[in-house]
Amino acid sequence: MTQSDQSSLPDVALIVGGGPGISSSCARLFAQQGMRVGIAARNPDKEVLQRLEQTLGARRYTCDASDPAAVERLFQSVVRDLGRPTLVVHNIDGRVEGIFRKGITEADPELALNTLKNSAFSAFLVGQQAARLMRENKPNANGAKGTIIFTNASAALKGFPLSGAFAMACQAKSGIAQSMARELMPQGIHVANVPIDAAIGWTQEDGTRAHRLAGTSVDDNLADPDRIAETYLQLHRQHRSTWAFEVVLRPWLEKW
Amino acid sequence: MTQSDQSSLPDVALIVGGGPGISSSCARLFAQQGMRVGIAARNPDKEVLQRLEQTLGARRYTCDASDPAAVERLFQSVVRDLGRPTLVVHNIDGRVEGIFRKGITEADPELALNTLKNSAFSAFLVGQQAARLMRENKPNANGAKGTIIFTNASAALKGFPLSGAFAMACQAKSGIAQSMARELMPQGIHVANVPIDAAIGWTQEDGTRAHRLAGTSVDDNLADPDRIAETYLQLHRQHRSTWAFEVVLRPWLEKW
Amino acid sequence: MTQSDQSSLPDVALIVGGGPGISSSCARLFAQQGMRVGIAARNPDKEVLQRLEQTLGARRYTCDASDPAAVERLFQSVVRDLGRPTLVVHNIDGRVEGIFRKGITEADPELALNTLKNSAFSAFLVGQQAARLMRENKPNANGAKGTIIFTNASAALKGFPLSGAFAMACQAKSGIAQSMARELMPQGIHVANVPIDAAIGWTQEDGTRAHRLAGTSVDDNLADPDRIAETYLQLHRQHRSTWAFEVVLRPWLEKW
Amino acid sequence: MTQSDQSSLPDVALIVGGGPGISSSCARLFAQQGMRVGIAARNPDKEVLQRLEQTLGARRYTCDASDPAAVERLFQSVVRDLGRPTLVVHNIDGRVEGIFRKGITEADPELALNTLKNSAFSAFLVGQQAARLMRENKPNANGAKGTIIFTNASAALKGFPLSGAFAMACQAKSGIAQSMARELMPQGIHVANVPIDAAIGWTQEDGTRAHRLAGTSVDDNLADPDRIAETYLQLHRQHRSTWAFEVVLRPWLEKW
Repeated sequence: MTQSDQSSLPDVALIVGGGPGISSSCARLFAQQGMRVGIAARNPDKEVLQRLEQTLGARRYTCDASDPAAVERLFQSVVRDLGRPTLVVHNIDGRVEGIFRKGITEADPELALNTLKNSAFSAFLVGQQAARLMRENKPNANGAKGTIIFTNASAALKGFPLSGAFAMACQAKSGIAQSMARELMPQGIHVANVPIDAAIGWTQEDGTRAHRLAGTSVDDNLADPDRIAETYLQLHRQHRSTWAFEVVLRPWLEKW
Repeated sequence: MTQSDQSSLPDVALIVGGGPGISSSCARLFAQQGMRVGIAARNPDKEVLQRLEQTLGARRYTCDASDPAAVERLFQSVVRDLGRPTLVVHNIDGRVEGIFRKGITEADPELALNTLKNSAFSAFLVGQQAARLMRENKPNANGAKGTIIFTNASAALKGFPLSGAFAMACQAKSGIAQSMARELMPQGIHVANVPIDAAIGWTQEDGTRAHRLAGTSVDDNLADPDRIAETYLQLHRQHRSTWAFEVVLRPWLEKW
Repeated sequence: MTQSDQSSLPDVALIVGGGPGISSSCARLFAQQGMRVGIAARNPDKEVLQRLEQTLGARRYTCDASDPAAVERLFQSVVRDLGRPTLVVHNIDGRVEGIFRKGITEADPELALNTLKNSAFSAFLVGQQAARLMRENKPNANGAKGTIIFTNASAALKGFPLSGAFAMACQAKSGIAQSMARELMPQGIHVANVPIDAAIGWTQEDGTRAHRLAGTSVDDNLADPDRIAETYLQLHRQHRSTWAFEVVLRPWLEKW
Repeated sequence: MTQSDQSSLPDVALIVGGGPGISSSCARLFAQQGMRVGIAARNPDKEVLQRLEQTLGARRYTCDASDPAAVERLFQSVVRDLGRPTLVVHNIDGRVEGIFRKGITEADPELALNTLKNSAFSAFLVGQQAARLMRENKPNANGAKGTIIFTNASAALKGFPLSGAFAMACQAKSGIAQSMARELMPQGIHVANVPIDAAIGWTQEDGTRAHRLAGTSVDDNLADPDRIAETYLQLHRQHRSTWAFEVVLRPWLEKW
């Protein structure tokens, strides 16, 4: 299948943001596909990331993605250790403790600003470093120099009440993604924004299902991060004659 | 790969609208994947469709998709010949001779109404028959009873000047697709709307590139229908935990 | 206030679609502002329209707005009786008996097509005739040759389940409105699409409140058609340096 | 006209961001309508603001609107000097020197973050203080406790190339506006987001036209801030049965 065509060099995938959901699923899938995988997190010593290193050989990096110098160092380390990245996933939600379900009159400004920095501003920084490196890549068999994917949330599509800071952060992330897409796609770099319109659930080692939001009882109403990772891989392998910029993923039972 | 899981019965794909672009690419790819393929067109005797029959065993059907009775008969014939459809692609642009680049004051009302009937109303009819059959299907390994895909155009996203009838038809098609998606997805039927934001080009037997719009000179600015068909297949194989409703495909060089 | 500047000739307003809600409110407000008012309906003998004639001098016209010849005759009659229109409001919802709350598998195709014709296709016809006349108008003090306003519904923004035909019709209407706006605004004709995201209620002669949807109990959750008419007047009086194309109106208590 | 109904107390309008365009036009119009007007800027000693004070009695305030404590103090001062605000306009574009027309690979991260803080984060802060005060207001004759208007730009609708930071900031501002609208409108506070899809021009004392973007030669393709102010006044006076959240204003000749 032409889609699977690869240039001679192996893909180097960098996942920024590390947890047991989408980031872990991406690391597993990308490694299975023969990519060299790096994963960056504030705290890369989490057990879940250690296991990815042990089982997949994924390289772990410490990075506060809202710090310009730290993001620059991260990409330098990745180039040195794994090679120039061809696939970068920004998978940081950005919400901090204390920001959830706060009305506009109660929300703490400092936490709101942190959410904005963790999410959109770090997307700007990660996208910037990725673009600087990728524009020097040779196009692969699908005509792409690289792929930059931003995980986003339903608040990117609609600002809900009691979550102003998150709406601000998600739509800011859409804004930087759109601008980068219009600027970089004609330069051969595929940029995608993927709002996940659902809570995300994953299967734990003991076979039970875990998810980020408590109280979500209908199992089928949780997006499966392994499936999200498959979509990311498909986006990475799209030929440049037919690139998708935005893909909203939601479970069949989700109201929208 | 779990995505390729198939239920025991083979997929039956019906493509409504038949030409050398997306419909032919879909027929080829779906047949390669082991599906039984039917293709319906006003004039199924076109050479391009005859060849699909000869090379792939695709079954050809005559159908004016804007005629309720004809669409009902089409689906009855497909069930009889191939089995209950699990994948239906509505691939009718709807534009008629004389409607192109007409200002609102010059556009012929009868042609405008025909465009609307050929495009959106036939999408309604095809979607209706597909839904009636699919809701009786058993869910496949990805939890889906079937997939209904509407090919659409950039006018679905933005009504351009000098093409009022087409804007009306494309946005009507988005409307019926959205309503069907919100209604049928919780019933296990995946509905997708795929605006192609580009002229579509394809490789002819002599190796040269053909396309629907004259004067499109940059080869890379034509969407490749083989790649569009791949996206349709991926949509069909998405697990119901992560369904995409709308995917806009555009070439890397397209302005948007 | 400069906004009220008027050219020397009086405005001629034509309202297509006639009922006790928005159409009546527009007729009253426009007449109060000194405009000559025409109102067209399938059945212009309804008591509510007779009263508008008696109290405001509004001229009544019989017109099936989905019939090209009838719409052409309507505009000829208006020019003859009142003068060239400078403000045209298309206020036809288009839904027919039997189309409400029907699933896609049950909806009657003929009724769906009628809804599409009554709504979007009649908007095309009315917009076409309005544009033909208005482009010959002299610009008024706000630089406008005329204003064409399409009343629309929330289904223009989102296709809801169990109302596929209406979603199709409303989004088709948005499509023709968008195309006309991009084409006609640079020619000096202001085109606007106004989705009302609410049930509409009005005060009856006995002082009680009537509304189109039964069972809507919260009075404040009904859009007041007198206020909608005020927005239409403001749109008509906007200077061409700052035209709004789409205004969504919804009551404060509406969920969206 | 019912729209002009006012509660017994005079409106108190606070304009955050002060320049010769929209802010000055708002100050003039609001003062003409009998409102008490405050205007806050980083540098309130600009001549244009001094003149507003002299001619209209507008009160000037010093405020860095990206500083939580400064914004809190601003509202306290306004309450003390003018009374509780009923109309607050956030009119800060946020772009800083050095951010214009920068590709993603060249953009300075610190300037990008400043743009985000000046624009979206200050909108959060101003909206928060406005909401805290307004929710204690008595509803006026139109059922509103107050109106909060965010001036925005076309980048709120579409992220353009070479302006990633601005796209991020504008869409973030839309996000906070949307969340506030869904949260506060059911509490009686009208929230509106007004993207101006144009360069803005204004008439100088010598009668010539000035504008923010150099090289914009077609006079009619500049939005007139006096007209924008009229729209803001109309939004403030809308009855709560028919509130508009988003109004995009663009000149007749603008491409979109």
